[in-house]
Amino acid sequence: MKGKSKRILSALLMVLLIAATIIIPNYNNNVNASASKTSISKVIKETGATVPKYIFLFIGDGMSYPQIQATSYYLGTTASKGGVKTQALSFMNFPVAGSAQTFDSTSFCPDSASTATSISTGHKTYSGTINMDTSFKVSYETIAEKLKKQMDYKIGIISSVNLNHATPAAFYAHQASRNNYYEIGQEMIASGFDYFAGGELLKPAGSDNSKESIYDLAKKAGYRVVRTKAAAEGLRKGYGKSIIISEKIADGGAMPYELDATSNEWHLADYVEKGIEMLDNEKGFFMMVEGGKIDWACHANDATSTIHDTVALGNAVDVAIDFYNKHPEDTLILVTGDHETGGLTIGFAGTDYDTYLTNLENQKISYAKYDSDFVAGYKKNNTKFTAVLEDIQKYFGLVPKSKATAAANAKLILTDYEYNRLSEAYDMTMNKPEKLDQEEYVLYGTYEPLTVTITHILNNKSGIDFTSYSHTGLPVPVFAIGNGAELFEGYYDNTDIYDSVAKLTKVK
Amino acid sequence: MKGKSKRILSALLMVLLIAATIIIPNYNNNVNASASKTSISKVIKETGATVPKYIFLFIGDGMSYPQIQATSYYLGTTASKGGVKTQALSFMNFPVAGSAQTFDSTSFCPDSASTATSISTGHKTYSGTINMDTSFKVSYETIAEKLKKQMDYKIGIISSVNLNHATPAAFYAHQASRNNYYEIGQEMIASGFDYFAGGELLKPAGSDNSKESIYDLAKKAGYRVVRTKAAAEGLRKGYGKSIIISEKIADGGAMPYELDATSNEWHLADYVEKGIEMLDNEKGFFMMVEGGKIDWACHANDATSTIHDTVALGNAVDVAIDFYNKHPEDTLILVTGDHETGGLTIGFAGTDYDTYLTNLENQKISYAKYDSDFVAGYKKNNTKFTAVLEDIQKYFGLVPKSKATAAANAKLILTDYEYNRLSEAYDMTMNKPEKLDQEEYVLYGTYEPLTVTITHILNNKSGIDFTSYSHTGLPVPVFAIGNGAELFEGYYDNTDIYDSVAKLTKVK
Repeated sequence: MKGKSKRILSALLMVLLIAATIIIPNYNNNVNASASKTSISKVIKETGATVPKYIFLFIGDGMSYPQIQATSYYLGTTASKGGVKTQALSFMNFPVAGSAQTFDSTSFCPDSASTATSISTGHKTYSGTINMDTSFKVSYETIAEKLKKQMDYKIGIISSVNLNHATPAAFYAHQASRNNYYEIGQEMIASGFDYFAGGELLKPAGSDNSKESIYDLAKKAGYRVVRTKAAAEGLRKGYGKSIIISEKIADGGAMPYELDATSNEWHLADYVEKGIEMLDNEKGFFMMVEGGKIDWACHANDATSTIHDTVALGNAVDVAIDFYNKHPEDTLILVTGDHETGGLTIGFAGTDYDTYLTNLENQKISYAKYDSDFVAGYKKNNTKFTAVLEDIQKYFGLVPKSKATAAANAKLILTDYEYNRLSEAYDMTMNKPEKLDQEEYVLYGTYEPLTVTITHILNNKSGIDFTSYSHTGLPVPVFAIGNGAELFEGYYDNTDIYDSVAKLTKVK
Repeated sequence: MKGKSKRILSALLMVLLIAATIIIPNYNNNVNASASKTSISKVIKETGATVPKYIFLFIGDGMSYPQIQATSYYLGTTASKGGVKTQALSFMNFPVAGSAQTFDSTSFCPDSASTATSISTGHKTYSGTINMDTSFKVSYETIAEKLKKQMDYKIGIISSVNLNHATPAAFYAHQASRNNYYEIGQEMIASGFDYFAGGELLKPAGSDNSKESIYDLAKKAGYRVVRTKAAAEGLRKGYGKSIIISEKIADGGAMPYELDATSNEWHLADYVEKGIEMLDNEKGFFMMVEGGKIDWACHANDATSTIHDTVALGNAVDVAIDFYNKHPEDTLILVTGDHETGGLTIGFAGTDYDTYLTNLENQKISYAKYDSDFVAGYKKNNTKFTAVLEDIQKYFGLVPKSKATAAANAKLILTDYEYNRLSEAYDMTMNKPEKLDQEEYVLYGTYEPLTVTITHILNNKSGIDFTSYSHTGLPVPVFAIGNGAELFEGYYDNTDIYDSVAKLTKVK
């Protein structure tokens, strides 16, 4: 070997050694520290991550491991007619799946305002507070605001619930209380963000209905506000700032539950697709997409609606994956939850190791649609329990013993115990007391006793149970793919999600 | 710049580019495939992982996200006298924290036999079956057997429960049924593994107590069998194959619950420390450590015992971390669960968004010790409920209204509803019916009605709940640090844990 070649080889080897030292992760000293917090810059350096031009942040409200796993088991078992199969949502196959702890300033069972504040700004605060500190004196600038201001990204905010609800608000508003809906609406318009789509605004004219409508303020500020599917379809890139309110509106001014939606209306995925069209530009964009009704369904302990809305979120992520496949180097997709809701478990004391998830196929409408389309009528017309039972069989599949036929699914026949529970719940719904006692509250929460008892019984017969009508303290998964995805590895705090996105995009 | 320097610089840049191409992960095409399955070889190549000489596999039986998060919240809040703080177990700060799905051949709520088979051999099988296929014709060789045979590693198996229980057995036995305790014991001895430590063998002389004791077979096969702490302490490297049976034995022949253990007896961590001493050698070792009573506590819905046994597992991992810190390049530590047990949630319908985890400090003994040391006596002596209430106050902190003083923790005073539940459960325990009806089964499972009602009430007053006495379908976290840790990123199947360890160690 000639001297020159030898020197070059030595140089090559040295570089390889140095490269290996820099690039191969070495976490030796991180065991007792917060690995993720201390190593963001290191991981960026090691992986060669650059600033992603296109960032998608999907938040399944109330969606954690149980919601996601139950959905994939449900899809697998229904597709195989009762087999023990799993069918992953696409994002479950992302290369990175870290975990984020969700506790806030004062609660291990935090709310969407504080948890979205953590994701959006990297700060813990009170449950109910949006992007302000616990003294209500300091406002925190959000990742979306920073990306708009410092990077000139276009910003899109999509939610299946109200556009001034806590989670979407946490990307543009700064309020001591998430209930300041009008002020949040004002901040929404003032944000100048480029694309909003989803459910109706709450209290658009203020609590006393006396203020100038947020929708009018939006138009004055140059927003194109559309309220029909046809008009939404007609929006074109270059039309400028736009707000789409779902043509179909259901409970609480939100989009319908996926279970209740028809094929000819827009789903969450359609708003994402239109959003990409409206936001795509050479500077880049940031899009936050909330599957908000996963949370609402879990609050009500309605497992079937939970699963269908988780599928809807998965379909919306698929649209982003299509975009990612065209721009893999420039795109980052994150899919996470803000907290778990309901204490959902795949498993129930009464069914031990058995599950019968295909039973859930018998539920045809959400608890909310049953409330509005049926229970309201029962109360008005004083409908007899026997007639109510017919609806329960039709829409939830639960069969009274007296109606059981050879064809009936034996797993759906009501036992005496279950029949009595339904009957008591019916009485409670028809003559609801002012205040529930401790036992009744655990049984019904603040829901229609009849409706929540129907879903409880169907859940339980399927091998599913809930422990709460509120949020729980389970960590949430953080799925990531694309440029910078490795930053979301490990078990960390939800504030680290902001920290990683901020460090990656170099915003201050 | 001189020509030579320029050429060297060009060469350097090219090498850096090549290194970056090889080393920086690129998952673009994995979205719709099982990222982990298809990319094991790729990740090994990318990360430069080599064969780890020392492999620790910790399995918290029944331990998933709820058990781990509840433990860190409990530690944080008790250390801060009720603050909303988290205190991570060391392994929660490992750089990698993936997720593994746990379903087996026929159940979404699988058991320890099938899940440990998946981890140990990469195959799904029936609940209850150990390392055999569902025809019971094919036996699967385990990762421990392969590492011993092909790599000459020394092998250690540690469990806080019986050494022939399902999880430890899944590393050395091959049986259609996990209940073949004697045959499993025979396989344990035939394995020639180097170090066993933990609880007593179940049925060491067979179901009819007529066979030659497994302990005698062990001695004949050259094992040193010790049964006292002093003898265990006296074991020295070079003594050869050894079996340590815990001097202190509690329920079911297992080691005591951590909550019941005294400071002068050996804990799980001590068995790991001795194991390292006995196994350390230049060829390498594989050590499986099971925290088996996390599962047992969750089955019984005893949150306090669950938390303390999760801490004990964390302490055992800390011993491995100390070893890792001395041999960072040669060590891989994995910490996972086999499945979730109990449907534990941080959150309960009756307490909404509030938790009072410090209440659990009032529980002084495990449900099992209460059963053996107290409930057995109540039955024998027909102890009056008023006397029982005194024990409940002393050992679980629950205070009848009539005994409430100004000093009593208001959160621990029994409501009328809770008092009545306790009273009914006491009656059930004192006059247990042959068969429970559906409602009673959900309330008590197969446990002492009194005991399980006490833990239910204490859990609920703390903002904790369970949904099942069995296993559930939640995925489990997989924490990893060290050489090859990156293989355990993502959301995958529990069989992938085996696949990754096997590919990494190059066993066939």
